[in-house]
Amino acid sequence: MAVTPDDFFNAAMLDQPRNTMNKFGSLVTNINVTQFPGLNTLGISYARIDYAPLGVNTPHLHPRATELLTVLEGTLYLGFVTSNPNRLFSKVVKKGDVFVFPKAMIHFQMNLDHEKPAAALSSLSSQNPGVITIASAVFGSKPPISDDVLAKAFQVEKKLIDWLQNQFWENTNY
Amino acid sequence: MAVTPDDFFNAAMLDQPRNTMNKFGSLVTNINVTQFPGLNTLGISYARIDYAPLGVNTPHLHPRATELLTVLEGTLYLGFVTSNPNRLFSKVVKKGDVFVFPKAMIHFQMNLDHEKPAAALSSLSSQNPGVITIASAVFGSKPPISDDVLAKAFQVEKKLIDWLQNQFWENTNY
Amino acid sequence: MAVTPDDFFNAAMLDQPRNTMNKFGSLVTNINVTQFPGLNTLGISYARIDYAPLGVNTPHLHPRATELLTVLEGTLYLGFVTSNPNRLFSKVVKKGDVFVFPKAMIHFQMNLDHEKPAAALSSLSSQNPGVITIASAVFGSKPPISDDVLAKAFQVEKKLIDWLQNQFWENTNY
Amino acid sequence: MAVTPDDFFNAAMLDQPRNTMNKFGSLVTNINVTQFPGLNTLGISYARIDYAPLGVNTPHLHPRATELLTVLEGTLYLGFVTSNPNRLFSKVVKKGDVFVFPKAMIHFQMNLDHEKPAAALSSLSSQNPGVITIASAVFGSKPPISDDVLAKAFQVEKKLIDWLQNQFWENTNY
Amino acid sequence: MAVTPDDFFNAAMLDQPRNTMNKFGSLVTNINVTQFPGLNTLGISYARIDYAPLGVNTPHLHPRATELLTVLEGTLYLGFVTSNPNRLFSKVVKKGDVFVFPKAMIHFQMNLDHEKPAAALSSLSSQNPGVITIASAVFGSKPPISDDVLAKAFQVEKKLIDWLQNQFWENTNY
Amino acid sequence: MAVTPDDFFNAAMLDQPRNTMNKFGSLVTNINVTQFPGLNTLGISYARIDYAPLGVNTPHLHPRATELLTVLEGTLYLGFVTSNPNRLFSKVVKKGDVFVFPKAMIHFQMNLDHEKPAAALSSLSSQNPGVITIASAVFGSKPPISDDVLAKAFQVEKKLIDWLQNQFWENTNY
Repeated sequence: MAVTPDDFFNAAMLDQPRNTMNKFGSLVTNINVTQFPGLNTLGISYARIDYAPLGVNTPHLHPRATELLTVLEGTLYLGFVTSNPNRLFSKVVKKGDVFVFPKAMIHFQMNLDHEKPAAALSSLSSQNPGVITIASAVFGSKPPISDDVLAKAFQVEKKLIDWLQNQFWENTNY
Repeated sequence: MAVTPDDFFNAAMLDQPRNTMNKFGSLVTNINVTQFPGLNTLGISYARIDYAPLGVNTPHLHPRATELLTVLEGTLYLGFVTSNPNRLFSKVVKKGDVFVFPKAMIHFQMNLDHEKPAAALSSLSSQNPGVITIASAVFGSKPPISDDVLAKAFQVEKKLIDWLQNQFWENTNY
Repeated sequence: MAVTPDDFFNAAMLDQPRNTMNKFGSLVTNINVTQFPGLNTLGISYARIDYAPLGVNTPHLHPRATELLTVLEGTLYLGFVTSNPNRLFSKVVKKGDVFVFPKAMIHFQMNLDHEKPAAALSSLSSQNPGVITIASAVFGSKPPISDDVLAKAFQVEKKLIDWLQNQFWENTNY
Repeated sequence: MAVTPDDFFNAAMLDQPRNTMNKFGSLVTNINVTQFPGLNTLGISYARIDYAPLGVNTPHLHPRATELLTVLEGTLYLGFVTSNPNRLFSKVVKKGDVFVFPKAMIHFQMNLDHEKPAAALSSLSSQNPGVITIASAVFGSKPPISDDVLAKAFQVEKKLIDWLQNQFWENTNY
Repeated sequence: MAVTPDDFFNAAMLDQPRNTMNKFGSLVTNINVTQFPGLNTLGISYARIDYAPLGVNTPHLHPRATELLTVLEGTLYLGFVTSNPNRLFSKVVKKGDVFVFPKAMIHFQMNLDHEKPAAALSSLSSQNPGVITIASAVFGSKPPISDDVLAKAFQVEKKLIDWLQNQFWENTNY
Repeated sequence: MAVTPDDFFNAAMLDQPRNTMNKFGSLVTNINVTQFPGLNTLGISYARIDYAPLGVNTPHLHPRATELLTVLEGTLYLGFVTSNPNRLFSKVVKKGDVFVFPKAMIHFQMNLDHEKPAAALSSLSSQNPGVITIASAVFGSKPPISDDVLAKAFQVEKKLIDWLQNQFWENTNY
């Protein structure tokens, strides 16, 4: 099949706010190789992130990409945690600022405003960055991780782990 | 020296329009490893491009990066030329659209509006993408390429080459 | 300084059990570029893991390495969680078995025996694999992540987050 | 199908001069993965370049390869233009000399002799180096780049651009 | 076909001694992508090496991997030869020690004990490391290398080369 | 220090025959990063090989490069041995032909002519390919490999190994 200019194009509507009415108050719109096949092998992708007031893009990581974020609207508290030892590098950033989350580091953002939404545009150094959201990976995987493991890991009683796992199963749509 | 959160931060003002009063009617604002040393080894960078009405980001290429562009404001005519053979893949794109220029391919953008400025945000798959602007590399290099070579290359008389070279030397600030 | 055979050698005592008397009931002994500088640029390292009865090597990930584990002694329950969606791939493995944890995926192991210790030998596809231990990165980072972020992430009240953070600070030696 | 010694062999006739009777006075004979499939994944290829008296291998670049050239016969003026800023590195080289053109930099060669042909052998650091010839990519692409873009780029009137584009279309065989 | 936990698992029996009754007194048990397809693209593999008393894992190299060896049982004399110039880096190592053989360097191990077997576990930085055993590659290839070449290479008479080639053909099972 | 065109140039005299009066009847002239520092990071190098009548470039390998050879003069018998199993891929090639030796495979060439010299030009896919010459690495390393190891490897008596080692020590200049 012939290659055409449309193979290098995606009507991503990256300028359009998205609906953030969910329990986290945030929504990620990916424009990676899944949505835009022409990115294959090119080593780059985009994601737009919308935040409700006080909304959080919860701690997560991308196994195959560094993320470079710029604020489109509002003010964000954001950061990442390094390996060996676990230091937090956090910052409050505003419209037009840029912050970088190195590959495979746990990171997050939160809209600090109580009334207004916020938005960011991120670019990722892979056409297929992947995402592992910590809370749902740990407490909401399918099948679940044994509560013996998680009770030891978080140093809490198993019934708290069970309650957290139930909560994630109730609240998550698979 | 201790690493701090500011090492991962750049007050890039990517939301701010820049002055495009120059002969091409465009300005590129780079946020790569030169402006933002914390990007070193991370394989990604940003550039904001501002266009005057009918302004052109003239044909150029990045030797070390694919470029993923999204339109922030306005309507652009853009495209790139492939190697073997030289096919042009061009498209008219508008606010929120995404277009990709594969690594080391000659590409350009032009603001199609006669009255309003336009702007784009590009992300590049290297912290040090480099740029070779075709017209100034060929006609404005320092020292100049022999006019014998360029006359053969463009199949024109040497005096036209000399005139073009003079023009680029007059118009270019080194 | 002259290179000698000792630059390629490390008296790692990988055959020796280690002390697992800690709250998790496990200990990791790394033989990577930090302990063995001769591994620099060679893209490989070892780690020995010792488990007390019911001991857990808690959920963690290596940002820069795949891990290939073989059981030296005992029986382990182990697994990893994939990205998009979060599926758990788990297995009970015994002495001489091999299991692989792909790069940057969250994984864990647990000694299933109530009375006897266990041990594993892992090889990692980097001389500097790094490690991010989920619970301590999320609840024990220095400085701490805002409890607003973590309450949203885990969908619990802030006072539970505060309690978990205190617990990790009390129990962790920095 | 069984692999045989002939899969690693190509009767390239790299010692044989080629016909350079064309408007540029040069001819490139590639021995890359297209002509020699056994080079696939091996990261290297050859090209022989023949030059008529005063013939020019016009400014071009290889998006995926560094080129290492040695002169087989005659004397060449050659060079390349760097990115940021556009500096020309040029040299006159003779039989047996070696010159290197770094990956994706615009480069050229010209036979300085008015009477005798010249020849060079180049090796490229990719089995599929690609080539973008500047003049034909810019003025002879199919379809053509808008003359609005090119007039701005070269700072000339559109009718000169149109004349150059016509010339390349007349002279080029697609 | 659905991916299951067994795709990441191999019942390798790496703890089990193997039969070393052969002319070299050693046996290598590979757990690479051939035996364990789930390792594909993951860049790592294992091998267990068993040695009879005075058994030798003869000089060989892995074209695509560094090898990190740890002694499971016994005492080994081992080493590798560098390129330009040919220096030998050798060492006597015992149970629990670690030694690294850099990628594509000729290396060997020998069990120094006259009565007891030895064993080692090696991890390799490729899922498909390959192996070229020097003596059989040079004297036992199929078809054989011309004895003119080998007589020059080893600076011996052709009849010694012929005798060595016959010996490898008699003793080798293809 | 300023970069100049001479940093990209080497007066290699690749067209000039070299003296092949040595016990192997061949001489390799390398133009890699050692002789030509400007090749650093560029991933390519050259070597010229001269052969006396019946001269041999003895079995050797390059740990970090594929080699692409073209015959400049004469007729060569050449080949390489694969890993697992050891198959020989050999061919007789003449002036202008091209043959490729994949990375880290043992290979050789021999001038088939009884009276005339031959020559080849090779290009290698690394600026620092390295070379391991099999016979001298195995029998002439410094210090020597134990004759216990080599007697087992070649399945010969130790006194033959000792004789070969003495011979290489006598004949080799370190």
